[in-house]
Amino acid sequence: MRCFVLISQTALASGAFSLEDLPASSGRLDLLLRALRAALLVSHGLRRSVLVYLVLRGGAGGSRVLRVDGRSAKFLRPDERSLAILVQKTLQSGTVLSKDFQEVRPGLALCEGDLEEVLAELAGLPCYLLDEHGSDVRAEALAVEDAVFFIGDQLGFEEATRARLLALGCRTISVGPLSLHSEDVVTLLNNELDRRFGPEACPAASPPPGP
Amino acid sequence: MRCFVLISQTALASGAFSLEDLPASSGRLDLLLRALRAALLVSHGLRRSVLVYLVLRGGAGGSRVLRVDGRSAKFLRPDERSLAILVQKTLQSGTVLSKDFQEVRPGLALCEGDLEEVLAELAGLPCYLLDEHGSDVRAEALAVEDAVFFIGDQLGFEEATRARLLALGCRTISVGPLSLHSEDVVTLLNNELDRRFGPEACPAASPPPGP
Repeated sequence: MRCFVLISQTALASGAFSLEDLPASSGRLDLLLRALRAALLVSHGLRRSVLVYLVLRGGAGGSRVLRVDGRSAKFLRPDERSLAILVQKTLQSGTVLSKDFQEVRPGLALCEGDLEEVLAELAGLPCYLLDEHGSDVRAEALAVEDAVFFIGDQLGFEEATRARLLALGCRTISVGPLSLHSEDVVTLLNNELDRRFGPEACPAASPPPGP
Repeated sequence: MRCFVLISQTALASGAFSLEDLPASSGRLDLLLRALRAALLVSHGLRRSVLVYLVLRGGAGGSRVLRVDGRSAKFLRPDERSLAILVQKTLQSGTVLSKDFQEVRPGLALCEGDLEEVLAELAGLPCYLLDEHGSDVRAEALAVEDAVFFIGDQLGFEEATRARLLALGCRTISVGPLSLHSEDVVTLLNNELDRRFGPEACPAASPPPGP
């Protein structure tokens, strides 16, 4: 699986945001929703071999992680409002949560936790930390399709998070000469991997979730 | 200038859509709004050397073109709802329109017209038509920074539009092995151009429009 881990210092873990003012009321969850689209949706299809983790650290209730699995996800639409509604319903489902991921909706699982719960699931996979000063992804070997890409939010990475990931052996890579939105970073990584491993590595499935 | 021309067969030219159900009520204007973000916004900045044309052919009132100029645009936010509100206000401003572009809001100009009005502004520039069967953009010379990229919608290009662009000498190019959303296509083109011509060719400006 191709794994994208988006770590937000501000995005509300509670789901208590307004659809009418997503950026201000959700702690910039909008940014993660757009990255979710970029990770999972292609024209008229869904990438079945992509796994996305949204680490939500905002709000007073403690952090949570939302995992979206392309193998089983349904009802993903590309527009931001539809994704916001789906994520809000998932976060506010009332399911009693633990440190283990529990599926709340098809392909969408939640846990009470943070980066460590994600790392427990992805142990042993080659990992990359996106950083505008990292080495160019086009020059990286990226020898296997199974890999994990850690991407920060509009504030970057917290120092403790960065240190933890570097200690794990993550390589720092960049996608180009400009500092881009997270969703553009995801798009560029998907494209590089599609080119290396072919579309077969990431088949689009039917039924299509819409263009 | 780096120019992106997005041609939608269905997006409503009238602006008479609902923010609560953008995809269904706007003829998929949502797709163009996301492409607008990808074209113009970077992390904490706006690309001043990018020009975007949205050709809106949907609805019964005749087509219109919205031009967004990175040199003078203001108040562009990355979230889809904010962009939808800005575009709706522009389309519904009541300004009397003609075949010539008229600035309705800072950096946002409108005309009553279609592809021909766009071509009249961009005559002589090297042009490219995005097509998944085209030659790989990474192998293209792209010798100059001033270039025009024509991108279809969820339905592709109408045959007459494709024929007109090919007759102009547009080269058909692709960005990778999968059929992607328009916004991902724009992101990949911007990245390729940033890599060739450097971030200086497309400086981010202050004040930032938000991350």
